[in-house]
Amino acid sequence: MFATLKFAALLLAVVVCWATQDYDYNDAEIDEEPTLGDSPYGSLWPLPQKVKISTVVFKLSGASFHIFDAKESSSGASCRLLQNAYRRYDEYIFTSSRKQGQNKSKKALASDMSELQVWITSADSECDSYPSVTSDESYKLSVDSPVAVLKAPKVWGALRGLETFSQLVYKDEYGAKSINRTDIHDFPRFAHRGLLLDTSRHFLPIKVILANLEAMAWNKFNVFHWHIVDDPSFPYLSRTFPQLSQHGAYHPYTHVYTPSDVKMIIEFARLRGIRVVPEFDTPGHTQSWGKGQKDLLTPCYSGASPSGSFGPVNPMLNTTYDFMSMFFKEVNTVFPDAYVHLGGDEVDFSCWKSNPDIQKFMEQQGFGMDYSKLESFYIQRLLDIITTTNKGYMIWQEVFDNGVKLKSDTVVHVWMGNKVEEELQKVTEAGFTTILSAPWYLDYISYGQDWQKFYRAEPLSFKGTDAQKKLVIGGEACLWGEYVDATNLTPRLWPRASAVGERLWSDRDVRDLNDAYSRLAKHRCRMVQRGIPAEPLFTGYCAHE
Amino acid sequence: MFATLKFAALLLAVVVCWATQDYDYNDAEIDEEPTLGDSPYGSLWPLPQKVKISTVVFKLSGASFHIFDAKESSSGASCRLLQNAYRRYDEYIFTSSRKQGQNKSKKALASDMSELQVWITSADSECDSYPSVTSDESYKLSVDSPVAVLKAPKVWGALRGLETFSQLVYKDEYGAKSINRTDIHDFPRFAHRGLLLDTSRHFLPIKVILANLEAMAWNKFNVFHWHIVDDPSFPYLSRTFPQLSQHGAYHPYTHVYTPSDVKMIIEFARLRGIRVVPEFDTPGHTQSWGKGQKDLLTPCYSGASPSGSFGPVNPMLNTTYDFMSMFFKEVNTVFPDAYVHLGGDEVDFSCWKSNPDIQKFMEQQGFGMDYSKLESFYIQRLLDIITTTNKGYMIWQEVFDNGVKLKSDTVVHVWMGNKVEEELQKVTEAGFTTILSAPWYLDYISYGQDWQKFYRAEPLSFKGTDAQKKLVIGGEACLWGEYVDATNLTPRLWPRASAVGERLWSDRDVRDLNDAYSRLAKHRCRMVQRGIPAEPLFTGYCAHE
Repeated sequence: MFATLKFAALLLAVVVCWATQDYDYNDAEIDEEPTLGDSPYGSLWPLPQKVKISTVVFKLSGASFHIFDAKESSSGASCRLLQNAYRRYDEYIFTSSRKQGQNKSKKALASDMSELQVWITSADSECDSYPSVTSDESYKLSVDSPVAVLKAPKVWGALRGLETFSQLVYKDEYGAKSINRTDIHDFPRFAHRGLLLDTSRHFLPIKVILANLEAMAWNKFNVFHWHIVDDPSFPYLSRTFPQLSQHGAYHPYTHVYTPSDVKMIIEFARLRGIRVVPEFDTPGHTQSWGKGQKDLLTPCYSGASPSGSFGPVNPMLNTTYDFMSMFFKEVNTVFPDAYVHLGGDEVDFSCWKSNPDIQKFMEQQGFGMDYSKLESFYIQRLLDIITTTNKGYMIWQEVFDNGVKLKSDTVVHVWMGNKVEEELQKVTEAGFTTILSAPWYLDYISYGQDWQKFYRAEPLSFKGTDAQKKLVIGGEACLWGEYVDATNLTPRLWPRASAVGERLWSDRDVRDLNDAYSRLAKHRCRMVQRGIPAEPLFTGYCAHE
Repeated sequence: MFATLKFAALLLAVVVCWATQDYDYNDAEIDEEPTLGDSPYGSLWPLPQKVKISTVVFKLSGASFHIFDAKESSSGASCRLLQNAYRRYDEYIFTSSRKQGQNKSKKALASDMSELQVWITSADSECDSYPSVTSDESYKLSVDSPVAVLKAPKVWGALRGLETFSQLVYKDEYGAKSINRTDIHDFPRFAHRGLLLDTSRHFLPIKVILANLEAMAWNKFNVFHWHIVDDPSFPYLSRTFPQLSQHGAYHPYTHVYTPSDVKMIIEFARLRGIRVVPEFDTPGHTQSWGKGQKDLLTPCYSGASPSGSFGPVNPMLNTTYDFMSMFFKEVNTVFPDAYVHLGGDEVDFSCWKSNPDIQKFMEQQGFGMDYSKLESFYIQRLLDIITTTNKGYMIWQEVFDNGVKLKSDTVVHVWMGNKVEEELQKVTEAGFTTILSAPWYLDYISYGQDWQKFYRAEPLSFKGTDAQKKLVIGGEACLWGEYVDATNLTPRLWPRASAVGERLWSDRDVRDLNDAYSRLAKHRCRMVQRGIPAEPLFTGYCAHE
């Protein structure tokens, strides 16, 4: 069942030896063929860039261990982001094992690991900022007695390092919390590591979104691509156009995201170093918009008279652009990220073709019978509108393919399954940054360990110069919503998305499936223990279920 | 996406008309293509054999409505099974809508449905019995004001009728609990309607098993085929051989089923009219048995010396049969059902072939090189042992295929995907009863609405006489455990298994996919509201999520 790829050299990673580790997770997932050994990297996921783990073991006492700011750190007690993270990771590390009333001042033994110092090294910690595509997520982690030190230029690297530290802690055979002497220097391979969730085909309750943001942080994802509206429903409650959700949501009160919901999600994500990039997809995928906004969609015709159904956004009316101006002005204020995703995929021309006014407009504009020119006409005007808001934009690949004029900082999102490498070549040749989703449509499920397929995908396998390769800033796992809602989304997403997480964070040469299986099985058990029902990779069990 | 089969005539079902019904569930699942109308049968699932629904509507008041025994019923207040069921269905019908402290003695209005009388008509209600393959599950339900009457010869039919009654209740547009005047005469098409869960590849906590037994009852399943042990683990705690789970379970305390656990599961199932048929699969699939029982498995050889690994049960030792006698004697006392499933599938001969003692034994017995004769030799002796316990047995199809001599009441379980119809033909030609699982391996997942594939399967499409067809007593949906555990089992099982539930209960002609989609979408929302996270069929939403 497993490919027998050799474990390629990890850059500079020298594993001196590996003591018996993580007793609780041993044999966490038992595979019948072949029998898989433990990874020398324990349960680390995604694998850091440079790891050196020694056999020397320290104990962590729940009574005395602390995470706190290093004296030299540019970030102090006023940094809510870090203080929240310390509390979170303290809980993860000592879940159910710190007894009530234990004396926190108990003297540490010589072999104890008494504290983790977090040291933000640059003058501006960015504690109160939003993460961006240029955020520095690097960190160095030195675990040695009696003090472990986590150094990072910015809070973003500190968040990643705290997760890594928590993954190094294991229970020894007596149940004692332990950690090996370790040196790690880590940074992401790609700057954009995203997950797309679709809240239109099924509404996802806030708590489902928050739980998955939490799991994203455990997997070092840093972009929540919120495909918030689409044909089936419009759950975004717009202050400017409340009628959109009032008529377009599945239910106007119970199945909407209010402004305060959105704010909460953005802040919850920020505290975990995750950007929230909303997608408002037009001109197609907009059926639900039409329910609350008169004349926004194109009336379809059946012969000489309107059929009563509607097609894509009507590109010939000035009112359309007035609406979009006001709508995206609001979006610009609600979503702090520097980018908005404008969609632009899968526009069906049949309705436009049926409409005599559109036909006349095509003639006036000299578009002939080429409706992709009409689509581009619309998109071009939309992009001009967005440009005035100072937002950058992401678009699905069709917009680029159709030759629309794009700002130089546009991110082209490659999703189509055919000719992926050619597309990446073309987009980067044209000088645009790009992200890849084609190999990572997690809604397509199949029998067996399909995480391996996601894991094997390599974003830079296309032909191109080094400069072109640098334009690939990352990728996104997409879980489209046709067949998932609160009942099944989370176990279907994890740990399958984790495979994408490692591909986008770790070194290109980290691709040994046996080693990955061993680490991922433990990582999934850790997610289960932390409260996310991540599904099993294969036959076996977790100690804490 | 949907086949356009016409809705075939339902035997004698005359739908006079259908009032606006179940407001809450309207549009519960919205399909983009085609737009599906409501079913005239509302949310009934599986569809009863004969249904007549009128437009006359009655209201049910949570304050005054009661379910209780008809005066003429042979079953009274001492029947715990029915009293428990009344309470359960009262809760389902009035979930969250019966206010605390409401006056139960409030006078019913003329248009109210004030009570459901349950009338067990035969002298022996079977209240304290276990259900069996010959249990009478038929019932007649007459819903008319002010009293609805549910008549059934036995408690088993009453249980099915209570579920049906609860499915007829809906909220009108004002939120009032309502029910239409209705006449139903119902009985199952097949006597054996089973679900296989596998607790060896992953351990399933008791509460997961109980929750799924509950969901089984909502779908009128009546056999829990408990594939309790297999290669990966042995969670059955045997009183006679406790070392089996002590060494063979994933964990000797947390991942086992104690005698009291088993007892609780059997009683919980009985109260819902569900048989528990345990499977102890031998001689293959027994790796976990070998950990606690010395010399039970065949030592494999590598050349002239033992390799250290083990194969199937060792068929040449008398100790093997002594062990099996004692083991199945215990099984006989622990599991009250008249049948035990003995497995007998997928025996790998390579280990037997490698072992010089086995080779010698083959020679002595005159088996030549035909190891299926050795397998049959083992199975034959095992069957003889079981026969002495007065239990009937079920076996996987290989045992029949290999020509083992079987008792006339043996149930042959057809599971192999190739030549299914030929196999059914052969088995029934030989005069054996049979159940079908080949089309219903729910562990094989795929993208999209695969419930339709399960739904389309027809157990009696093979060539054979009427007498042969009668030998097909039902089927089982199988959810093998390689990729499911407590994190994802329930949403993966429901409502996919519901498709099998209707195929096995309803008339052969009930196969209209549009009608089924409409009912099943509402049925799945009902399961969600009752607390089972059944996954969505497609884009849409439930009112109560």
